[in-house]
Amino acid sequence: MKAAQYLGNKSFSIVAGSTVAPASDEVRLAVDFVGICGTDMHIYHGVMDARVNPPATIGHELSATVAEVGSNVSDFAVGDRVVVRPLDYCGDCPACHEGHSHVCHNLKFMGIDTPGAFQNSWTVKARTLHKLPDCVPQQIGALVEPLAVACHDISRSRLQSGERAVVIGGGPIGQLIALVAKAKGAEVLLSEVNPARRQFAQDNGIDSVDPTATDIKAYVDQWSQGKGADVVFEVSGVQPALDVMTQIAAVRGRICMVAIHPQSPQVDLFQFFWKELEMMGARVYQPQDFEQAIELIATGQLELSPFISSVNPLEEIQQAFAGMDNNPSGMKALIQCQPSVA
Amino acid sequence: MKAAQYLGNKSFSIVAGSTVAPASDEVRLAVDFVGICGTDMHIYHGVMDARVNPPATIGHELSATVAEVGSNVSDFAVGDRVVVRPLDYCGDCPACHEGHSHVCHNLKFMGIDTPGAFQNSWTVKARTLHKLPDCVPQQIGALVEPLAVACHDISRSRLQSGERAVVIGGGPIGQLIALVAKAKGAEVLLSEVNPARRQFAQDNGIDSVDPTATDIKAYVDQWSQGKGADVVFEVSGVQPALDVMTQIAAVRGRICMVAIHPQSPQVDLFQFFWKELEMMGARVYQPQDFEQAIELIATGQLELSPFISSVNPLEEIQQAFAGMDNNPSGMKALIQCQPSVA
Repeated sequence: MKAAQYLGNKSFSIVAGSTVAPASDEVRLAVDFVGICGTDMHIYHGVMDARVNPPATIGHELSATVAEVGSNVSDFAVGDRVVVRPLDYCGDCPACHEGHSHVCHNLKFMGIDTPGAFQNSWTVKARTLHKLPDCVPQQIGALVEPLAVACHDISRSRLQSGERAVVIGGGPIGQLIALVAKAKGAEVLLSEVNPARRQFAQDNGIDSVDPTATDIKAYVDQWSQGKGADVVFEVSGVQPALDVMTQIAAVRGRICMVAIHPQSPQVDLFQFFWKELEMMGARVYQPQDFEQAIELIATGQLELSPFISSVNPLEEIQQAFAGMDNNPSGMKALIQCQPSVA
Repeated sequence: MKAAQYLGNKSFSIVAGSTVAPASDEVRLAVDFVGICGTDMHIYHGVMDARVNPPATIGHELSATVAEVGSNVSDFAVGDRVVVRPLDYCGDCPACHEGHSHVCHNLKFMGIDTPGAFQNSWTVKARTLHKLPDCVPQQIGALVEPLAVACHDISRSRLQSGERAVVIGGGPIGQLIALVAKAKGAEVLLSEVNPARRQFAQDNGIDSVDPTATDIKAYVDQWSQGKGADVVFEVSGVQPALDVMTQIAAVRGRICMVAIHPQSPQVDLFQFFWKELEMMGARVYQPQDFEQAIELIATGQLELSPFISSVNPLEEIQQAFAGMDNNPSGMKALIQCQPSVA
């Protein structure tokens, strides 16, 4: 088998290895397609080396085919087409005990904290798998993981049909949140500074606005007949978005915090009091988010092929990462890990 | 009739006037007791002069007796003992249309934005009234309004019996939140820097801790067997409380923002993401919060007489405000507006 290894400092190498036989509760996968996530780009830039500990095989957005099953695995068979929910939880902390294993106190994120998917053979616990229906191609299957993120964000926000949602930030996750919100029956507005990303949204039927050229508060007031946005998704990670999110939210509006703000930024808590706002953090996903993501694709409610910007073989992973660097018009670069896919 | 007027610059005068006959939907009240709120203290210090526009009669925590009813008022009769929910809403904004009239876009808070209760005769809309049962004395009735604030905060937080709640800040509202939380069956811890307020809490059966002498994060970890607090009430309005609230909240913990933070302070949004925290603002109260507050007193679940620090006649309002100034061990000063009360 072959695996890509991140070596640090924007550098990958391809190494040869041996396949790992599955333990009783595991499955060995032939990895098909793996998407490059924003987190993978952060790793590529070296800012997560302390956590990743290179050399390391990263990658966590994938489709695969079951190649071998462990002795206690009954739900999956060789040849099944699957995706991986890349969360390894302890099962024994207060969060796991309360059914929140996706935010386990000791969570290991596969592909960051433990080896990941940029290899052609990967052995994982069977409990991480979800089956792909026949109608979902393997390339699209690699988009299920980021779509499950969006489904989780929508679920956390309690967005209802007929509500108005503003998504701040039009990267892949922001775009997917906008599409899931629209599929759910919400009116959706995307705020994004980059014209290519605004065009991408428009091409997918999402209204967008440039926050550097438009007074978003006035725009949302008019759009909502003075009410404000029922839900705001903060997916940008920048201070101006935090400044505007509390302004545009309606009385009793909800703010879903999707972006990661590593420093403690300024938040207008007065507006939380004055308008009785709510804010909820959203991290990764739960099993039902994967099931919903697969269903949204399988039923044709979402057409995700426009998200695929490029497909490169595993041997070209270095070029694929370089191609995504500083390329805001690119949404999702896929790495093809098998020589050919049915 | 006589009314106290706030003149600005920590100064009151007592003026004589005429009673106001009730309009068809109004009731004229003989005001019995009025509590001095923290907001009244802010007004006294001059920081809200632009909103209050002195000379003005302030005051909004009161008990009263119905003295005259308007022609269309059928729910109240002369002699009824009542409290006032001092909110004047427009009924025609998006918030009112959605049933959130307590956070009406055009809300007038009676006693701040419009004349208030520090007078012996006050004419108000009948829709603002709640009846007091016979078993609730008029002095205690003046505490229903702040208790309704606490009931609203508990309601907003979705606190359940058996959960662990930390209240940061032991002023009157923080103490009342702690008592309502305990009455609801929660385990409660109060964090308060002032020893007199910690002692007040202990005297009322609430465990308390000094955040300047104790590592609150470690304390809560041990108290909760590593889980963290299910709910944190931020009632202090200071940055160190904001710093600790995200640390002590459990995975999926809720933070109820009761305090007013006029500047946009720093908030650790990373913890919102990492632990999927929630934060909800809480402002004033809804009718059901008044009903719950009255029931908690009437059924003996809460004993509020320890909160009454002093009782002065209306003519001594100046001394009463001065006495509350920089007096952290005082909880609630009452102004007696009638010469004698049955």
